[in-house]
Amino acid sequence: MTITETGKLELAQNAAGRRVPTIVNGRAQTPYAGIGGHSPTGCKAAPPVRSSKDYPENGDKRVPDLETALRQCGLRDGMVISSHHHLRDGDKVALLALDAAARIGVRDLMWFPSASFPSQKSAIDLMDSGVVHHIEGSMNGPLGDYCTQGKMRGMGVLRSHGGRWQAIQDGEVHIDIAVIAAPTADFFGNADGSHGKSACGSLGFALADSIYADRVIVVTDNLVPFPCIPWQIQGNNVDYVVEVPSIGDPAKIVSGTTQITRSPDRLLIADYVARFVRDTGIMRDGFSFQAGAGGITLAFVDYLRRMMKDAGVKARFVRGGSTKYLVELLQEGLTDYILDGQTFDLDGVKSIASDPRHVATSPFTSYNYHGKGNFASLIDVVVLGATEVDVNFNANVVTHSDGRLLHGIGGWQNCLFAGCTILAVPSFRDRIPVIVDEVTTLTGPGELIDVIATERGIAINPRRQDLMDAARGSGLPIRPIQDIKAEVEKICGGKPARPKLGDRAVAVVKWVDGTLLDSVWQVD
Amino acid sequence: MTITETGKLELAQNAAGRRVPTIVNGRAQTPYAGIGGHSPTGCKAAPPVRSSKDYPENGDKRVPDLETALRQCGLRDGMVISSHHHLRDGDKVALLALDAAARIGVRDLMWFPSASFPSQKSAIDLMDSGVVHHIEGSMNGPLGDYCTQGKMRGMGVLRSHGGRWQAIQDGEVHIDIAVIAAPTADFFGNADGSHGKSACGSLGFALADSIYADRVIVVTDNLVPFPCIPWQIQGNNVDYVVEVPSIGDPAKIVSGTTQITRSPDRLLIADYVARFVRDTGIMRDGFSFQAGAGGITLAFVDYLRRMMKDAGVKARFVRGGSTKYLVELLQEGLTDYILDGQTFDLDGVKSIASDPRHVATSPFTSYNYHGKGNFASLIDVVVLGATEVDVNFNANVVTHSDGRLLHGIGGWQNCLFAGCTILAVPSFRDRIPVIVDEVTTLTGPGELIDVIATERGIAINPRRQDLMDAARGSGLPIRPIQDIKAEVEKICGGKPARPKLGDRAVAVVKWVDGTLLDSVWQVD
Repeated sequence: MTITETGKLELAQNAAGRRVPTIVNGRAQTPYAGIGGHSPTGCKAAPPVRSSKDYPENGDKRVPDLETALRQCGLRDGMVISSHHHLRDGDKVALLALDAAARIGVRDLMWFPSASFPSQKSAIDLMDSGVVHHIEGSMNGPLGDYCTQGKMRGMGVLRSHGGRWQAIQDGEVHIDIAVIAAPTADFFGNADGSHGKSACGSLGFALADSIYADRVIVVTDNLVPFPCIPWQIQGNNVDYVVEVPSIGDPAKIVSGTTQITRSPDRLLIADYVARFVRDTGIMRDGFSFQAGAGGITLAFVDYLRRMMKDAGVKARFVRGGSTKYLVELLQEGLTDYILDGQTFDLDGVKSIASDPRHVATSPFTSYNYHGKGNFASLIDVVVLGATEVDVNFNANVVTHSDGRLLHGIGGWQNCLFAGCTILAVPSFRDRIPVIVDEVTTLTGPGELIDVIATERGIAINPRRQDLMDAARGSGLPIRPIQDIKAEVEKICGGKPARPKLGDRAVAVVKWVDGTLLDSVWQVD
Repeated sequence: MTITETGKLELAQNAAGRRVPTIVNGRAQTPYAGIGGHSPTGCKAAPPVRSSKDYPENGDKRVPDLETALRQCGLRDGMVISSHHHLRDGDKVALLALDAAARIGVRDLMWFPSASFPSQKSAIDLMDSGVVHHIEGSMNGPLGDYCTQGKMRGMGVLRSHGGRWQAIQDGEVHIDIAVIAAPTADFFGNADGSHGKSACGSLGFALADSIYADRVIVVTDNLVPFPCIPWQIQGNNVDYVVEVPSIGDPAKIVSGTTQITRSPDRLLIADYVARFVRDTGIMRDGFSFQAGAGGITLAFVDYLRRMMKDAGVKARFVRGGSTKYLVELLQEGLTDYILDGQTFDLDGVKSIASDPRHVATSPFTSYNYHGKGNFASLIDVVVLGATEVDVNFNANVVTHSDGRLLHGIGGWQNCLFAGCTILAVPSFRDRIPVIVDEVTTLTGPGELIDVIATERGIAINPRRQDLMDAARGSGLPIRPIQDIKAEVEKICGGKPARPKLGDRAVAVVKWVDGTLLDSVWQVD
């Protein structure tokens, strides 16, 4: 490991050859050591033992408002406040909590959302005014941009869904107060995401917060008599319950329906991927798959569904993010189960609320690398996107080729452990090639990425001779990645311009085991 | 607190005036300090951080047999091996594990079952031969008798269901290896109790073990393809999976049907209790109740059901142990939910397996006193039994009046926190009065026991003037407890003989907060 000095920040070179800080937000870091290269030590985080004698005997934990709840939780300067993003761009609760903290007059909070969204951009004002010191969590859009401009006082820390669980569980992040937006809850704090006017489906992203935080506040706009069933969040972990008129904007919490791409090029990619899955024999009775909720991956699910029907093949389970396309599979008997980490559209919400075969999962079951295994490596094939891929099959999902941080990792890193990982990407976007010599920000190591499918052909990672063999004779356009790249560069007029990156790391990308995979650099 | 010296064992007098050891099995103890008198400190137990890299990537954690699993778990002398009792007297797995440990040649194990049963009496041989040092957990029948005879090398520790969770959670008991009998499981270790030839319903008693033990082995006779749905035990906490031909004797796992008492006296008690619940206004729309699976309490449920129908009253929830009588309430729309900790008969098993309104609970949700509240104090009325009650409304459920330890605590202590606690007991058994001057073993403090209902009348605790007032004019035979006691002593020919107890504590009764409520003394 080479140690270099850049300004005040000491950097180390990790096993992927990337420069990463040795200290982040005051905490010593371990550089990425390769897949499975890091062995954790020590014990899980241990929240304080509480006593029922200190909680209302009748179970009623309601307090009048968030400010009261935060005060009673002992909110102080420098604390860590967490929130979840199941309400996505429709969430109101995280800002309600941060604004209440501002009114209380505390400073230098660390906001620890599972993800932040454009509608939360007023958190920038809270950072400018000193209430929030920095954000650790996915930053979609303006907040990520703010970070890459070097304006955040602390460093951004990007973690996968599984990595966030791992960080909380391992005690890397100690949550002082968790604020959990709940579409349905009872006065005891049992909470459910599947019912109510602000229904969002699963609440799995908030589960670690509820278990490990010192104090937990449930905020709901749909209080039901005890018991709230099902209880995705257990009231036995909850300190206070706050009723508000609205936890979010339903229109932005879930899409009415999720949309398949209409682009012929992208439909072609989806078709290639579905045929690849079929023709390599991955699609077989009892198989499993996961696909995102993007336009290409939705089209893939739709194509695969038809192929499954034609072939009389049934999956054992499919993994959500759920959409109406997965729900159709379930309803048509093409899968026994949907295992669902988040719910993207109204069909998904309706299904998870009513069909016992549509099962809510958490990052613990699905993704936590520091458990006794997780579901991610049991899945036969996963189809994902990327902002960039490189000739070594490394991929980027967090920054654009201009270096700006605009996306979170989500479950993307965790999913790479599937039996076959396929990145379905257009070969270029806005005349900028997607296949590059080296990704701007390394988010996923190439050794875990098996296939890159573009509208110009499918590249198979040379490490997967088995897939090469299986695809032979399929008639699919299997091509070396270098060939596809050369063709795209011809179309786009050359390689993409290298971003002008400063020498100051403004955020880091964690690997699933808590080590540092890469840095995001200030964009000058 | 008075400290006295009895043989080698130092004793302290606790807040209930009972003598309890200051050290139990090498661990310093806190004497009972009154209801809510003890404030816990410190943090929850923290199991080691694991890594998925050390578990099979394909999720298959099966090993050929229990001996292999125990060896791979690093079984050593002196370790703590836990098991659960959802298979009740039909369980085969606990002895399979202990016998495998004997073959491996280890000694001095602490066996930590959630309860032990008569069919496991060969554990006595394992104690005699030195493989098992002692048992901490409920000991029903011969094992309890063995303990009271002073033959166990260590001291028996009796905990309620909630107290067992508390002890594990608080790190008072560190489980080295949990062995979990699972009526259904997948190769990853996800496990469910509701399906399979050995179905027992809920697996809640094993949940703490799965979360906090260093190593976890799931033993099943019904392996299903991943994922096992629902997963009451999460495979992410499991190290090894073992398939065996049979985990238990179905006939002894659940009763075919649970039986209402036919004794006219006991039916009269049940009738009194049901009328008391109705006439004091506890039975009202949205109320909740819990009743055991004994002959009297089943009859109570049946009577109450008719009264609810007549009055057009619906409960919000009822708590199991579930039986066909609770299932009927659910099916007839007389309750919204059954919250079920254990499942006593085939109707209960069928219902919990198929009806989403029949919800499996765990001691964490229901009973753990060291959580942020629990369900027990939210219940309007609970009807329980006892082996003895005394004039101060203290009660005993673990020993008989001859001092022999023959029963466990179960959820009994935890349930005392209900809005109204009723003990439904015959006034004498085998011509021995049940109402005594002072209970042989204090299991529940009288200040939490509100009503004692016998066939000779109903005694209301003088602390509950509100219940006295509510029962006025009901026509129910409300009598001072001293009156009932005097009448019974006349019938039985005097007070029961005091047991001849030695001066050696052979077991202790923990209160729900981990303090020592009483001792069980060697019977000479």
